[in-house]
Amino acid sequence: EAYKLLVLAGDGIGPEVMREVARIVHWLDANRGLKLDITEELVGAASLAVHGVPIRDEVIELAKQSDAVLFGSVGDPAWGHVGFDKRPEVAILKLRKELELFANLRPAQLFDALIDASALKPEVVRGLDIMIVRETVGGIYFGEPRGIETLPDGSRRGINTEVYTTSEIERVARVAFEMARQRGNRVCSVEKCNVMESGLLWKEVVTDLHKREYQDVELSHMLADNCAMQLVRNPNQFDVIVTGNLFGDILSDLASMLTGSLGMLPSATLGIVRDDGKRNALYEPIHGSAPDIAGKGIANPLAQILSFAMLLRYSLNRADDADLIEKAVSNVLASGLRTADIMSPGMARVGTDMMGQAVVREMEKL
Amino acid sequence: EAYKLLVLAGDGIGPEVMREVARIVHWLDANRGLKLDITEELVGAASLAVHGVPIRDEVIELAKQSDAVLFGSVGDPAWGHVGFDKRPEVAILKLRKELELFANLRPAQLFDALIDASALKPEVVRGLDIMIVRETVGGIYFGEPRGIETLPDGSRRGINTEVYTTSEIERVARVAFEMARQRGNRVCSVEKCNVMESGLLWKEVVTDLHKREYQDVELSHMLADNCAMQLVRNPNQFDVIVTGNLFGDILSDLASMLTGSLGMLPSATLGIVRDDGKRNALYEPIHGSAPDIAGKGIANPLAQILSFAMLLRYSLNRADDADLIEKAVSNVLASGLRTADIMSPGMARVGTDMMGQAVVREMEKL
Ligand SMILES: CC(C)[C@H](C(=O)O)[C@@H](O)C(=O)O
Ligand SMILES: CC(C)[C@H](C(=O)O)[C@@H](O)C(=O)O
Repeated sequence: EAYKLLVLAGDGIGPEVMREVARIVHWLDANRGLKLDITEELVGAASLAVHGVPIRDEVIELAKQSDAVLFGSVGDPAWGHVGFDKRPEVAILKLRKELELFANLRPAQLFDALIDASALKPEVVRGLDIMIVRETVGGIYFGEPRGIETLPDGSRRGINTEVYTTSEIERVARVAFEMARQRGNRVCSVEKCNVMESGLLWKEVVTDLHKREYQDVELSHMLADNCAMQLVRNPNQFDVIVTGNLFGDILSDLASMLTGSLGMLPSATLGIVRDDGKRNALYEPIHGSAPDIAGKGIANPLAQILSFAMLLRYSLNRADDADLIEKAVSNVLASGLRTADIMSPGMARVGTDMMGQAVVREMEKL
Repeated sequence: EAYKLLVLAGDGIGPEVMREVARIVHWLDANRGLKLDITEELVGAASLAVHGVPIRDEVIELAKQSDAVLFGSVGDPAWGHVGFDKRPEVAILKLRKELELFANLRPAQLFDALIDASALKPEVVRGLDIMIVRETVGGIYFGEPRGIETLPDGSRRGINTEVYTTSEIERVARVAFEMARQRGNRVCSVEKCNVMESGLLWKEVVTDLHKREYQDVELSHMLADNCAMQLVRNPNQFDVIVTGNLFGDILSDLASMLTGSLGMLPSATLGIVRDDGKRNALYEPIHGSAPDIAGKGIANPLAQILSFAMLLRYSLNRADDADLIEKAVSNVLASGLRTADIMSPGMARVGTDMMGQAVVREMEKL
C-alpha cells in the first residue's frame, strides 16, 4: 500500500527545488520499492494567483489525510500590499495551526565540507550540531486580540498578544526532552522571564516537567537576548534549545546562519497524533522562497532534498532510504560540487538540476 | 554652576566598574574644570537588600531632576524567586518608563585592537560600525493586559501584549533618521510584519515619515529573523537599524557580540525634552551585572567609562572631554592591556582598577 504524500511546492524557488526531490522519488520507486501516492497542490503566491487565497480549505483537508506533507517555501513580497490575510505566508501559518503542528525541529548542523562558508571562525563553529525545538502554533503568532485600531484622534495602534498555556508549553518541552535523550542529553530553555510573564510561566512549566519526568536530562535556562549572544560566542555549548514561536523564529534562523549553509538545512514540524494513530507532520527547508533568484535555475535543492529524507525517516519509517540520501548529499559535497550560495574557491559551481542529478548518481553508487 | 549627575551603580559588577569612572571624574575635576554635583543611590539587588524595592520613588524623582543618569547594571538572579515586581531589572524598566527614555542608542563598534576577540572572521567583522536605535518604553515590555491567569481547570495561561502607537513609532524612527544623517545615511527598519499587525503598522509609519521628511536618507525594511541572519552573514551592510523593544533587545545584544567586546560597549537612552528644556537621558554599559564575576576585581570597566564619555558628549555638551576619554581608552588597548574578557595571547592581563588607572594615565599624557 502506497504512502499518501502531499507536496506543496509554494512560490519563489519552491517549485524548482521540489523538482529535484521528484527525481529522487522516481529513483527510490524504481530501485527500492518506495510507493508514494503523491498529490501536488498550489500554496502561497502560486495559489493566490490562481485561487485568490494563499491556501484553500480543500488543501488543508488533504494535508490532514496525508501521511506527511512536503512543503517548499512561500513568501513572495509582491503580495505584501494586498492585505494581511493574503500574504503567501498565511499558507504555512494555517497549515501549522490547523494540523496542530506544534513542534518545529530545526537542526543547525555544520557540514564539514562547508566550514569555510560560515562567517564564524572554524574553531568556533567546528562540530556544530544544535537542535532547536520551536513551538509553532501558539505565542504571539496566533494570540488574540490582534490587529490595527484607529483611535479617536485619528492615530493608530497595532496590537498583538502573546499567550502560552501550561499544556502548550508542556507538550513542546516534552518533545525537546525526548530529542535530548537521543542526542547530547541537554536542554536549554529560552524565554524572557525577566520582562514577560508568559516567559515566567514558560520557565516554571519546563522546570516542573523536568522534575517530574526528565531528571536524567540536564536542563538549563537562558534569556533570549543572552542566547542570541551565546550562539555567536560559543555555539557548541548547546545541544537542544527549546523556545517559543517568536524567539524560535529568530534564534533558529540565527543558528542556521552560523553553519553558513542555509540552503542545506531541513526541518520537520510534528503535530498531534490523529484518530487513525498517525502523527501529523510537515517537512520544509528552512530557507525562504528567495524570489530574487527564482526561475534562474541556481537555487540549492539540498535543503529540500534533506527535508524529504527527514520525512522518510520520521513519517514513513524508512530510515535506510533517509540514510542513503544523506550519505549521497555528503558525498556530492565532498566531490566538490557547489551551488552559488555555498560556492568557494576551487570548487565546481553547478545549478539546481545538476546538483539534483549528482545526488541521484551518488545514490546509484552507494 | 555644577551639572547634576545621578549615579546608580546597581548590583553585580556595577559598583566596581563605577569606581573607575569616579577616578576619571576626579581627574577631570582637577585638570579640566569639570564640576559635577553627584548623588549616588542604590538600585537593583542593592536597593532590594536595603529598601525592599528595586528602585525607590525618590530615586526616580532625583533622576527626573538630574542633567543625566549614569547607570551601572542590575540583574542578580538571586532575587528571581521573590516575585515579578521584585526583580532587580525593574529598576531599569521603571527608569525608562518614568523618564520616558524611548530611544536606546546602542553602537556596535569594532575596536581594531580587539578584532581577534570576535567569533567572526576578521574579514567579515573588520570596520564594523552599526548603530541600533531600539524603542524602549513601548511594545511587549509594557503592554497591558499582562500576567499569569489560572483557568477553571487549574491550568495556567501567561499573557503579554505588544502595543505600538503611531506616535511611539514615529518619534523613535525620527531619532534613527537623524542619527543616520550624521553617519552613513542609511536606516534599516526591522519588524515581523508578515506575522504581526504591530509590525505592519511599524513599517507603514516609518515609511510615511521617511516620505514626508527624510527622503535624503536611504530606507530599507527587514524581517527580524532575517536581520539576525544578516548580522552574522554580513554585518557591514548595516548603518542604522531601528526596531522595537523586544527585537531591539535581542538584535542589539547580537550586534554587540559580533564585535567580541561586550565589556567595551556603552549605550545612551534618550527621553523626552522636559519643561526646563533639558532632555532626559540615561547612560549605561550594555553588559549585564555578571554576578558570577562580581567582587573579584576582574570586570572590564571600559564600557562604563565609555558610557560616561557618551554622557559628557550628549548631555553635558563636553565633546572635548569625551574625545579625551575615548582616545585614552583606545591608547590603552593599543598598549596591550587587557581585562580577562578581552584577553588574547601576548597581551598583558590586568584587573578592573589597573585598567581604570591606565586610562587616567593616558588622559594625563594626551
Ligand atoms: C514565513 C514565516 C511566516 C515563517 C515564520 O515566521 O514562522 C518563517 O520565517 C519560518 O521560520 O518558518
Ligand atoms: C535588564 C533587562 C530588563 C534589559 C532588557 O531586556 O531591556 C536588558 O537586557 C537590556 O537590554 O537593557
